[in-house]
Amino acid sequence: MTVTRPRGFRAAATAAGIKATGALDLALVVNDGPRDTAAAVFTANRVQAAPVLWSRQAIADGRSRAVVLNSGGANACTGPEGFADTHRTAEHTAQQLGISAQDVLVCSTGLIGERLPMDAVLGGIDTAAAALAVGAETDEAASRAIMTTDSVPKTASATTSSGVVVGGMAKGAGMLAPQLATMLVVLTTDADVDPATAGSVLRAATATTFDRVDSDACMSTNDTVILLASGASGITPRAEELAEAVRQVSADLARQLVADAEGAAHDVHVIVRSSSTEQAALAVAREIARSNLVKTAVYGNDPNWGRIVAAAGCVPEDVAPFAVEDLSVSVNGVEVCRSGGAHRDRSEVDMTPRETLIEVDLGAGTATGDIWTNDLTHEYVEENSAYSS
Amino acid sequence: MTVTRPRGFRAAATAAGIKATGALDLALVVNDGPRDTAAAVFTANRVQAAPVLWSRQAIADGRSRAVVLNSGGANACTGPEGFADTHRTAEHTAQQLGISAQDVLVCSTGLIGERLPMDAVLGGIDTAAAALAVGAETDEAASRAIMTTDSVPKTASATTSSGVVVGGMAKGAGMLAPQLATMLVVLTTDADVDPATAGSVLRAATATTFDRVDSDACMSTNDTVILLASGASGITPRAEELAEAVRQVSADLARQLVADAEGAAHDVHVIVRSSSTEQAALAVAREIARSNLVKTAVYGNDPNWGRIVAAAGCVPEDVAPFAVEDLSVSVNGVEVCRSGGAHRDRSEVDMTPRETLIEVDLGAGTATGDIWTNDLTHEYVEENSAYSS
Repeated sequence: MTVTRPRGFRAAATAAGIKATGALDLALVVNDGPRDTAAAVFTANRVQAAPVLWSRQAIADGRSRAVVLNSGGANACTGPEGFADTHRTAEHTAQQLGISAQDVLVCSTGLIGERLPMDAVLGGIDTAAAALAVGAETDEAASRAIMTTDSVPKTASATTSSGVVVGGMAKGAGMLAPQLATMLVVLTTDADVDPATAGSVLRAATATTFDRVDSDACMSTNDTVILLASGASGITPRAEELAEAVRQVSADLARQLVADAEGAAHDVHVIVRSSSTEQAALAVAREIARSNLVKTAVYGNDPNWGRIVAAAGCVPEDVAPFAVEDLSVSVNGVEVCRSGGAHRDRSEVDMTPRETLIEVDLGAGTATGDIWTNDLTHEYVEENSAYSS
Repeated sequence: MTVTRPRGFRAAATAAGIKATGALDLALVVNDGPRDTAAAVFTANRVQAAPVLWSRQAIADGRSRAVVLNSGGANACTGPEGFADTHRTAEHTAQQLGISAQDVLVCSTGLIGERLPMDAVLGGIDTAAAALAVGAETDEAASRAIMTTDSVPKTASATTSSGVVVGGMAKGAGMLAPQLATMLVVLTTDADVDPATAGSVLRAATATTFDRVDSDACMSTNDTVILLASGASGITPRAEELAEAVRQVSADLARQLVADAEGAAHDVHVIVRSSSTEQAALAVAREIARSNLVKTAVYGNDPNWGRIVAAAGCVPEDVAPFAVEDLSVSVNGVEVCRSGGAHRDRSEVDMTPRETLIEVDLGAGTATGDIWTNDLTHEYVEENSAYSS
C-alpha cells in the first residue's frame, strides 16, 4: 500500500545509526523506469535546509531516479559544509545505484543547526542499496525510516480507471511535534507522463491537501513533496484522471498527518463558505485555525464562537470582504452564532468527538475554503518545551 | 499614582453586581476641565464591540468629559440591542454627571456574545456618581474595577519638565487570559492641549508601546486606549515634551501588562536590528514572537535558535529583505547563531531569569524594531481551555 505499489519502484530502509535510538533512519526509493519523470514542491520558508537547496537544483530538469531520505537530523542552517554533506549523500547514492548524482533527490528531517553524522549516512546508503540489489524490498520499512515523532507510518494508494497506480508515504506529526517537525512526502506512479504534466498534477494536488494542513502555523525549513513517475504501466492517463488519483492519495496522507499530530486531542476542520473568493475563505479559515484562543477552547470542549468571530475579524477587509452582521458560525453542526450574534445555545454542542467541525458563513459570495488544524493542548506544550537540547 | 494624579480629574468605582463574584466591576473617570480634550485609539479588529462603536462616534469631535468602564461583560457581538445598552449606559452616566451623552466614552471587557445585566450597570453608575459627588475619590479602586484575570492593578504616572502631569491605568493580562482578554487603558493629563495635539501624541505613544505587546497574536474586539486632557495645570507644554511623558506612562503600563500575563513563565523581548526598515524589523520580531515553537522552547528554557531562524524565514522577502547567511541570533546575550549557522554553544545560555532577550541581527540595514511577548505554558493552556462556558 505504499511507494512500491505502482510498477517500476523499489524501496529499502535501514537503521544507519543517525538516530541515537537505533531506530530505522534512512530510506531509499528508486525509480527503475522506463521513465524518470519527477516533480516536487518545497517549503516556502526562506531558510531552506541543504537537502532542499540540493533537490531544487537536481529536479530542475524534471527528471530523477532516486530519493534518499534520512531522519535524525535536518541538515538545516549548517552552511556550506552542510550543503557538501548533502552533495556527498547524493553522489554516494548515485554510485551505489549506478546513476548520476543529479538524478538523486535528498530529504532530511530532525534538529536544525547540527551536522549529520556522515559516516552513518554513507554506511546506511550502502546497506540500503545492498538490500535493494538482492531484491529485499522493504517499502513498509521505508515509511518507518522517515518517522520522527510520528506514532505510525503513513501510506496511501489509489488506482485510476485506466489502471494507473499512485502510491505514497509521508512523515510529519502535523507540525505539532518537537524540533519543528518537517513534512516529507514521496508519491510514486507508474503513469507514463512528462515532467510538465507531473508538475502541474502535483501542484494542483498539494494546493488543496498538504497546503491546507496548518497545525501550528510554523513552516519547516525542510518540507518536501516529491512525485516520481516510472511509466512502467505503459499507460498515459488523461491529466485530470492522474490529477484526481494524486489528489486522493495526497488528501489521504494529509488527513493522516493531522490525525497523528502528537499532543492533539481534536482534529479541527475549519470550513469557510459564502466567501467572495476561495483565497478570502482560506485567509479566514487560516486565521481561525491559527488562533491559540480558538485552539485552547476546542481543547476545553468549549464551542466559544466569540473567539472564532474575533479571529475572523482579524483578517483585513481587503483580503476578505464580509460584514460582521452577516457572519454565522456552526460548531459540530450547531449554529451557535447567526447574524454576528448569539443564536443556538452552546450547551447543545457535543465537543467530545475527536473531529471538530467549525463552519463559518461569511454571507459574501459563493466560494469555499477549508483548513485542517489541531487543538492546543498540554501535550503540545510538553512535547515542544520538555525536550531541551 | 493613577488617573487622578493630574489636576482636574476624579474617579470612582463600585461593585455593581455585573461580575458574579461580587468584585469591583464598574469605574467612572471624570474630567472636570476646564478643557475637555480627548483622543483614543481602538482595536483594529473588524468585529468591534458596542462600546467601541459608540466611543468612536462620541470622540469624533475630540472632546469627552467622562469614561465609564465595566468588567464582567464585553458587550461584543450583541447586535443592535447591545448597542442600545451602551447608549443607555452613556446617557445614564451623562444624566448623573449633568453632561451630554456625546461626552461620555464607554469601555467594556469580559465574555463576548452576552448582553450586559443593565440593571446592575445603571445601579452601579448611580453608586459611583454618588461617590464622586461627595468627594470620595477612589482612583485606586477604579484601576481594580477594570481588572478581569489581571492579578494586580496597573497604574503609572510621569511629570514633565514644565510641570504637566500624566497619569494612567490599564487592564489586560497581556491577552494571555481566558475569554479573549481586552486591553483597556485610560490616560489623563492636566496639560492644556487641543484635540489634534492629543491625538498625535497618543498615536505616537501607542505605536511604540501597546502596539508592540503581542502575547498571543489574538486581537480583542474591545481594545481601547483613551487620553483625556483637562488643561487644569494651565500649562501648554511643547508637543514633544507631552509626547515623551505619554510615551513613558504607556511604556510603563505596557510592560506591566506583559509582566502580569497570567500563565506566562517568561517575559520575552524580541529585538530585531540591522533591518532595512523599522517595519521590516517589526514584521520579523512579530513572526518570532507569535511562533508557538519559539514560545514553547522559551518555556522549556531551551535557546532553540533553529526555531527562531525558521520563524524569521517565514516573513516574505518583500516585507523584510535579508539573506539567511547574514542572520545572527543571540539569546540572553549569547550569540548562539552567526552567519545563519551554529556559533556559541547553547549550553552557555542562562534561561532561568523571568525576562528572556532574543536579539536578531538581519545584516540588512540600520533600522531596529522590538516586540514584547510571553512564553507558551501549561498555565496558558489551562486558563484558556478549562473555563468552558
